[in-house]
Amino acid sequence: MAYEIASIPGDGIGPEVVDAARPVFEDVAEQHGFELSLTRYDWGTERHLEEGAMMPDDGLEELEGYDAILLGAVGHPDVPDHVTLNNLLLPIRKGFDQSICKRPAILFDGVESPLEGYDGGDIEFVVYRENTEGEYANMGGQEHPGHDHEVAIQSAVFTRTGTERIVRAAFDAAAEREGHLTSITKSNAQAHSMVFWDQIVEEVSEEYPEVTVERLLVDAASMDFIRRPEEFDVVVASNLFGDILTDIGAIITGSMGLAPSANIDPSRTYPSMFEPVHGSAPDIIGEGVANPIATVLSGAMMADYLGEEAASDDLWDAVTDQLADADAPRTPDLGGSSGTEDVVEDLRSRL
Amino acid sequence: MAYEIASIPGDGIGPEVVDAARPVFEDVAEQHGFELSLTRYDWGTERHLEEGAMMPDDGLEELEGYDAILLGAVGHPDVPDHVTLNNLLLPIRKGFDQSICKRPAILFDGVESPLEGYDGGDIEFVVYRENTEGEYANMGGQEHPGHDHEVAIQSAVFTRTGTERIVRAAFDAAAEREGHLTSITKSNAQAHSMVFWDQIVEEVSEEYPEVTVERLLVDAASMDFIRRPEEFDVVVASNLFGDILTDIGAIITGSMGLAPSANIDPSRTYPSMFEPVHGSAPDIIGEGVANPIATVLSGAMMADYLGEEAASDDLWDAVTDQLADADAPRTPDLGGSSGTEDVVEDLRSRL
Ligand SMILES: CC(C)[C@H](C(=O)O)[C@@H](O)C(=O)O
Ligand SMILES: CC(C)[C@H](C(=O)O)[C@@H](O)C(=O)O
Repeated sequence: MAYEIASIPGDGIGPEVVDAARPVFEDVAEQHGFELSLTRYDWGTERHLEEGAMMPDDGLEELEGYDAILLGAVGHPDVPDHVTLNNLLLPIRKGFDQSICKRPAILFDGVESPLEGYDGGDIEFVVYRENTEGEYANMGGQEHPGHDHEVAIQSAVFTRTGTERIVRAAFDAAAEREGHLTSITKSNAQAHSMVFWDQIVEEVSEEYPEVTVERLLVDAASMDFIRRPEEFDVVVASNLFGDILTDIGAIITGSMGLAPSANIDPSRTYPSMFEPVHGSAPDIIGEGVANPIATVLSGAMMADYLGEEAASDDLWDAVTDQLADADAPRTPDLGGSSGTEDVVEDLRSRL
Repeated sequence: MAYEIASIPGDGIGPEVVDAARPVFEDVAEQHGFELSLTRYDWGTERHLEEGAMMPDDGLEELEGYDAILLGAVGHPDVPDHVTLNNLLLPIRKGFDQSICKRPAILFDGVESPLEGYDGGDIEFVVYRENTEGEYANMGGQEHPGHDHEVAIQSAVFTRTGTERIVRAAFDAAAEREGHLTSITKSNAQAHSMVFWDQIVEEVSEEYPEVTVERLLVDAASMDFIRRPEEFDVVVASNLFGDILTDIGAIITGSMGLAPSANIDPSRTYPSMFEPVHGSAPDIIGEGVANPIATVLSGAMMADYLGEEAASDDLWDAVTDQLADADAPRTPDLGGSSGTEDVVEDLRSRL
């Protein structure tokens, strides 16, 4: 098999981690007898600053033929985030109907949590985040600019299609895991959107009698990720709530530098996209210390999606091994003093 | 001076903590030569179940003449939250234009944080939460119920008036504290509302050259409350983001049972409302172990608002003393095995 991957390193440390992870992916492909051909697209804020656009007008068409997309990071201190994100990352997620964002939160052996009393293995859940609508709908506007009666409106949009598919994907995952699903809402204050979300969860739950369902308000959930993270199995949340909760999930499991994610179009009409949860990290650009593991694990999720489960497992195992080994190189975000390359070389030696 | 206070104990442990805190307030009033007269309103979900309404139709009119309102908790396992909250708590906040929600997050000496390496005194910030609009606007609806093309819309509403007053209140607070303000947004994904918020922050900041302003996305902020809580001074956020962040603020400082809040109408046209951040806690009702401290500190915020600063300070001091004393009684949320009454009696002895 040969897979065509579009690689979009993007901004900041994005190119560093994508370039670093590439040989790891090539090794594992060779070992498992498939080919991985990465085509690089230098889209991002540098392009925006030089040519006035984050990507070409026909960017999505260009990507459409690929088997998957590997993205580094988007975001630049010189350009407002709503300009950079709304012209590259979010259009891909929405345009390619990548409705399921899957983000595991795992506290690996050998990694320290900022939460007292939590050790490797104690935290292992996955968040299913709705990824194309909800609070990220680009709907709303401002009126009466500058006047006392100025008002801005931002409308969150929840369709039955969009809500059902993320909820169903989460139930499927729960049925295959521990059978426990936590649905996140804010129904007490957002009666229009979140009561609808609750209805859909209720309806879909009837198809999964073996899955227990817990409903949790987003404020309580943010607390409970800190207070009792060991009790979560599968968590399903809207776009915004999933965004917030997966950042908490990343930090309680030791570092943003370890958290991978998959943006999936379950119909496989369009290519799915794999990206580390961390951002462009302007503060460490060019220092060679960015943690490549989140990108390596995003590649593992990509391999799994492509049907190369054995290769995926090997990548997870190599990372798990490395983190458990107190003598292995670690980047500064994990309390070490090694560089990106050292971590990659060590990972390759474990494959 | 004599102050007329409307007390709404509400649901669950609400009545337990409000009743328990009452003698503490009476003591401190006597010591400082003012009178505090509490009139009790048995409004809440029991009333809803018996009479079909959380409060009477003219509930707000009834409350209007009071100097302040003391609220326990609202929420009941038998009735959906959007019914209970939208008919008691939220109408008071909105109807009385309590636009400023002030919630301190303090890690007291003697209290354990779930965050490793944090000791008493290490965390001390305050969140200014917009409290009448934003994502809590009751605006939106559902269309095509049950059909494949069903859609639910929930619109967040940000007015210049509403945004300016919370931002200005936060700048005022920062100017009086450490001079550092963190403004929370999600401008990268919510270009209509949050870019407007950013504009207002930018405008108002010109009036406060001595305050440094940091802009932080809500997902990053949720992480940073865990990663570097010691660096925050004043945090300003929308209704929803403030809700999420203050729950994180409460848990990292040891317990929801310690977190007070003030819902303020800065124009003093209407009475302001003081309430513990915790909810009705159905799991511990009637056990006599609810922590009364969040209510006592809410009372301290009320005393301050009424102009009784010395009484307020005494309440804060009594709580601070008690928590620092390893031999003092503690409720189970703080790892102790004492009851509500023990904590109250001990507090009274320290006043
Ligand atoms: C960069 C931003 C738009 C994005 C999001 O909010 O989805 C990021 O925070 C993420 O979690 O992938
Ligand atoms: C009960 C609920 C409506 C309320 C809110 O979201 O404001 C509560 O969580 C709070 O923080 O006071």
